[in-house]
Amino acid sequence: MNKNSPHTAEEVASSAALQALDAHWVVPVVPYGQVLEYHSVILDGQKILDILSTEQARQRYPAASVVTLDEHVLIPGLINLHTHAAMSLMRGFADDQPLMSWLQEYIWPAEKKYVSEQFVRDGTLLGCAEMLAGGTTCFSDMYFFPQAVADAALQAGMRANVGLVVMEFATAYAHDAEDYLQKGLQARDSWRDQPLLSASFAPHAPYTVSNRTFEQVVTYAEQLGLNIHTHLHETREEISSSLKEYGVHPLQRLESLGVLGPNLVAAHGVHLTETEMQKLAAYGCHIAHCPASNLKLASGMAPVAALQAAGVNVAIGTDGAASNNRQDMFAEMRLAALLAKGVSGDAASVPAMDALAMATLNAAKALGLDQQIGSLEVGKCADVIALKLSAIEIQPCFNVVSHLVYSAGREHVTHVWVNGDLKYQKLEGQAGMYANIEPAELKEISSKWQTRLSQ
Amino acid sequence: MNKNSPHTAEEVASSAALQALDAHWVVPVVPYGQVLEYHSVILDGQKILDILSTEQARQRYPAASVVTLDEHVLIPGLINLHTHAAMSLMRGFADDQPLMSWLQEYIWPAEKKYVSEQFVRDGTLLGCAEMLAGGTTCFSDMYFFPQAVADAALQAGMRANVGLVVMEFATAYAHDAEDYLQKGLQARDSWRDQPLLSASFAPHAPYTVSNRTFEQVVTYAEQLGLNIHTHLHETREEISSSLKEYGVHPLQRLESLGVLGPNLVAAHGVHLTETEMQKLAAYGCHIAHCPASNLKLASGMAPVAALQAAGVNVAIGTDGAASNNRQDMFAEMRLAALLAKGVSGDAASVPAMDALAMATLNAAKALGLDQQIGSLEVGKCADVIALKLSAIEIQPCFNVVSHLVYSAGREHVTHVWVNGDLKYQKLEGQAGMYANIEPAELKEISSKWQTRLSQ
Repeated sequence: MNKNSPHTAEEVASSAALQALDAHWVVPVVPYGQVLEYHSVILDGQKILDILSTEQARQRYPAASVVTLDEHVLIPGLINLHTHAAMSLMRGFADDQPLMSWLQEYIWPAEKKYVSEQFVRDGTLLGCAEMLAGGTTCFSDMYFFPQAVADAALQAGMRANVGLVVMEFATAYAHDAEDYLQKGLQARDSWRDQPLLSASFAPHAPYTVSNRTFEQVVTYAEQLGLNIHTHLHETREEISSSLKEYGVHPLQRLESLGVLGPNLVAAHGVHLTETEMQKLAAYGCHIAHCPASNLKLASGMAPVAALQAAGVNVAIGTDGAASNNRQDMFAEMRLAALLAKGVSGDAASVPAMDALAMATLNAAKALGLDQQIGSLEVGKCADVIALKLSAIEIQPCFNVVSHLVYSAGREHVTHVWVNGDLKYQKLEGQAGMYANIEPAELKEISSKWQTRLSQ
Repeated sequence: MNKNSPHTAEEVASSAALQALDAHWVVPVVPYGQVLEYHSVILDGQKILDILSTEQARQRYPAASVVTLDEHVLIPGLINLHTHAAMSLMRGFADDQPLMSWLQEYIWPAEKKYVSEQFVRDGTLLGCAEMLAGGTTCFSDMYFFPQAVADAALQAGMRANVGLVVMEFATAYAHDAEDYLQKGLQARDSWRDQPLLSASFAPHAPYTVSNRTFEQVVTYAEQLGLNIHTHLHETREEISSSLKEYGVHPLQRLESLGVLGPNLVAAHGVHLTETEMQKLAAYGCHIAHCPASNLKLASGMAPVAALQAAGVNVAIGTDGAASNNRQDMFAEMRLAALLAKGVSGDAASVPAMDALAMATLNAAKALGLDQQIGSLEVGKCADVIALKLSAIEIQPCFNVVSHLVYSAGREHVTHVWVNGDLKYQKLEGQAGMYANIEPAELKEISSKWQTRLSQ
């Protein structure tokens, strides 16, 4: 036994779970803007036990197993606040089309023909693999067959907020809104003991969900303490058709139905008046900003700086791979930071640190999970990622936070821990490896569905 | 001698230079939109000799050395139409600042203190390494000490159009406009025999160059048959200060000075009236669209769809790494395609194929090099890159052109040939390797200048 080894059975037990992640830099997000140099994040099982200088860490935790990250930065795992992970099977399936024709002429017909429990499980697993390798440790999803979404997330070992989708029209998944609701609740019951999973009600959008269904969702959400996740004010067309059908903007309609509140995550929020932004702030609603999807479908550009100024919590989502075409939170952070400046005309809008917070802590707040995740703080869950910043294409590095947003990309992610477990790792000169996913399975999934969808 | 070997000395000589690049896909850009499957590009020394099915290639060129690219797509090398490559040393040096304070408070003071021939040579080499690994085979540069830019490009083995920068104010490089001009002409004389290098006059911008100097540039450019490369209509401030000082927009001022013509590459072109776009088209001017830099400095968003509709040739540039912060033409293509849709409100604006053309053929046209580069055509120079499209994060793949623009990134580039020579290669499970650049030299450059600039 060497002199650093623990000496009692109790010490062995406790130190066995201790890991010291020794990093060149740590950006904990809280405190906001802090960059620690030569620090270690100590993991004790599923939790963050300590954050301290590496020198101190060697003295205080001599028995911890050490992961050396000399050229790396540690940050909280990224949180994708709005996606449809299973749609990774439709990546690039229909490009350069506006939302409504993209939905009505391409996506909905394909979904009608192909979407099944197997499709959702396979597509979500592929999406999880993409997200995990890109440093995303948690995603908020909305799709058919939520049980299959949950199964795939559990296999991948990712944290997920699974949307219990509700709409009026019949699909292979459910035949009417009541059926969607019941199936969603049943699915949620099955994963209630899974620590990585949570659920939201996910009424699809104001144009696919009736007043009665929204009211039911509000009642259930109150009873069960769940979030509500919906598309809102994504396109001008959505607003004008609501004016025709209901005489009011969708936001006002949802207000009158009791949908607005601190448990509402509204995806997109592209077209909003000043009053509407103040209303979102007053109710404590959250916006899942999806800049790439909004541009690609020509939906518009969300007024992010104005939303922030009004006091709305803005986080970032990729949307599904069919309208992005990447579930890449690094690309999305960079675009959010760049686009906000172009929209506001102010180069100081959404500085790099804001973009990083939108992809971490702000999303955790939106999901009501900010006591557990979203920052590297003592006592929080160990959802941590490492990026190697020494690659030639991102040299030199004057400012680590700037680098994370403007220069680096998902290809620089080397380690991904979820709840203290290493779920993805890319060692020097090797292909990335997942703890629980075989690359052969992913290849088979992709090839099988590409063949079917190409018919 | 095996049976496939050539038998005469003449055959040995000719076949020794023959290479068959056997690819899953070839996107030659001309014909526009064409995607060839299981085709081979045959290189004979510096030129493209043939493009044909791989089956035919085996029969017609049995002695060619074969590069097998089973999971890859071959496309023309990307052309970065506007950059300041040496500014890679200032990557992330000053973020979240508008153009004028970014220039006046950060960049110009730093340049005044640090820019030297060595700085430019070092920074350009680092920039070349970044660009080459990302599939860029040619760049149009504008910076001080053009001789140092040329030296770095030659070492890297890249094709470059080197800007002979001209401005009124004194720098470490030159003391007045006449001095800039003479030094530029002298530099250009020294590389006139280099097949990979060409030159443009590069009067910096309307706000840093006098009428007299612009007129001199026009005279010299006519005499020598050179292009003119300038910043134009980048910000509203540039236009309003021109109105104050000259009573007209910069474009109109340049028109009256004879600067407009088919040899003008105008970088940015963010703020343009309908009449100005028609004027640019009528004169045959080219726009180097820099969407990331324009957003980052909050300069605005160029009306790309409207420019195309007016008949202006639009290509893409990254601008320098200090305002982007990547010299990454894949990121820039994607952003150009996405942003154009958001600006025009039309999801069909700048479809993927247009974005690819902007990063290849359109830029070659702007440089007057479209007889040599910009597409994979028989007789053109062999500037060719390969991307591997089998990575999990970009599966499945329904449409290769869509994938190149919306899903893949520079990290998927595996081979880069310039003028028939393999200048960069990234083999499975290995770090990328340059033909003529040692990674240790790049690390030393980056570290040395980061230390100095951090002072």
